[in-house]
Amino acid sequence: MKLLRVGPQGAERPVVLGEDGAAYDLSGRTPDIDGAFLSSLDPAELARAVADGELPSTDIAGLRVGAPVARPGKVVGIGLNYRDHAAEAGAQIPDEPVIFLKPSNTVVGGYDEVLVPRGSEKTDYEVELAVVIGRTARYLESDQEAAAVIAGYATVDDVTERAFQNERGGQWDKGKSAETFTPLGPWLVTADEIADPQQLTLRLWVNGELRQNGSTAQMIFPVLETIRYVSQFMVLEPGDVVITGTPAGVTLGHPGASFLRPADVVEAEVEGLGRQRVVLGKA
Amino acid sequence: MKLLRVGPQGAERPVVLGEDGAAYDLSGRTPDIDGAFLSSLDPAELARAVADGELPSTDIAGLRVGAPVARPGKVVGIGLNYRDHAAEAGAQIPDEPVIFLKPSNTVVGGYDEVLVPRGSEKTDYEVELAVVIGRTARYLESDQEAAAVIAGYATVDDVTERAFQNERGGQWDKGKSAETFTPLGPWLVTADEIADPQQLTLRLWVNGELRQNGSTAQMIFPVLETIRYVSQFMVLEPGDVVITGTPAGVTLGHPGASFLRPADVVEAEVEGLGRQRVVLGKA
Repeated sequence: MKLLRVGPQGAERPVVLGEDGAAYDLSGRTPDIDGAFLSSLDPAELARAVADGELPSTDIAGLRVGAPVARPGKVVGIGLNYRDHAAEAGAQIPDEPVIFLKPSNTVVGGYDEVLVPRGSEKTDYEVELAVVIGRTARYLESDQEAAAVIAGYATVDDVTERAFQNERGGQWDKGKSAETFTPLGPWLVTADEIADPQQLTLRLWVNGELRQNGSTAQMIFPVLETIRYVSQFMVLEPGDVVITGTPAGVTLGHPGASFLRPADVVEAEVEGLGRQRVVLGKA
Repeated sequence: MKLLRVGPQGAERPVVLGEDGAAYDLSGRTPDIDGAFLSSLDPAELARAVADGELPSTDIAGLRVGAPVARPGKVVGIGLNYRDHAAEAGAQIPDEPVIFLKPSNTVVGGYDEVLVPRGSEKTDYEVELAVVIGRTARYLESDQEAAAVIAGYATVDDVTERAFQNERGGQWDKGKSAETFTPLGPWLVTADEIADPQQLTLRLWVNGELRQNGSTAQMIFPVLETIRYVSQFMVLEPGDVVITGTPAGVTLGHPGASFLRPADVVEAEVEGLGRQRVVLGKA
């Protein structure tokens, strides 16, 4: 199933897309697509309810699409998880996953405006596969246990200010935390629909020019290993989001290329998870 | 005023302590001490209500004391903010504040158990002054604007696993994120009661032995400058917590000293903000 949230920021309502692409209102079942809903979600049962006409259809044409999960408890980033990106960033291939955090108030919808921060000269993009957590994850012991805590997947752009990240003293978080820096969606696709999360193409365009074109097959630490690993260092909770790293093609890796500027258009897509399209603005 | 939350984890109720040390129930005014409550808090009005007997007194003897704010939107850490600690950590004095993040589900109460993570050999303590945000902070321009967004202060222990932080590849967050790693409180003291946040003694004891004994006067970047600075890189929201760095005396800085082990008792105190006491357990 594809789940999404439509309506004004802070007042989104939950919707499910049927096989036919029509939208059905989920408000009768849950006030929001949040940790509580995801922890009890049974995609097969929901599909049956849609097929049986148990959910009212709803017209979402023209409505804003919010992030497909309500504000997460946390957004966990995995750094340098593709060899070609580590190389272009001038970094070593990591021996174990690099973990950073993004504030959850950076999350916006997949068609929202992304703001270039004040004082920024190096705002950059990173298309990634986002994993949405559906069950509490603590000291997971196997890939099988990791698979069981995943509610679904979404497209995400881990927007990053490279000077703030690398040239201002200290931790990456400084360049990962500006408002609007985590456009997520447009949808959440439930895990049952993704046969193999390691066989998904990721692409990103700036003003129509293809800049990133990779595959999750190139991940150094695959999704299940990453989730298992992260759970050794923190407790993941339903509604949390883990963003799993970006392939090559970011501006940082191409000296002379222009960083993002107001009015630029960034489209990002992970195969099967939908294409987001954000226009850059100015903070 | 001193604000606190009492009751079982996840079911705390809000309380205010009067001048006489007696406890008064705040449940009639707010369901919780959270961002919404803090953003509209008027300490003078609340003090008047207590003095006028408008709030029911309540017996909190024997009750668990939770963290003094409901789960924050984010916990922002400032690294190496005391010269003597930077020196003992073998780090340069930073040119500008070092920012990291802790997941907000690490926050527990000031008398709760702190769990040594599985596989940990270097669990360490850091007594710090915590700043609780009361109003949205975005691109603040002055110390005066920074002062206006502060709801209050609390004692915090920024528990850190040093091997996870420094020896496992990547960002500090990996060593800052384990469950129970942010005991906060016991109370939140409203900002009006702290005449000068740069004149507070910080002390920490392990099993009764004094290990840290500093003063916020030694901060490299004072509280207001720090809050103003952080607001250039992210939007702080009511209920968020900024922890402002630790003075010298952590285990990391004393080769041969024992890191924390189950059954150890850590007491941490910031002058005027109360002393917390946690017993270490095992994850």
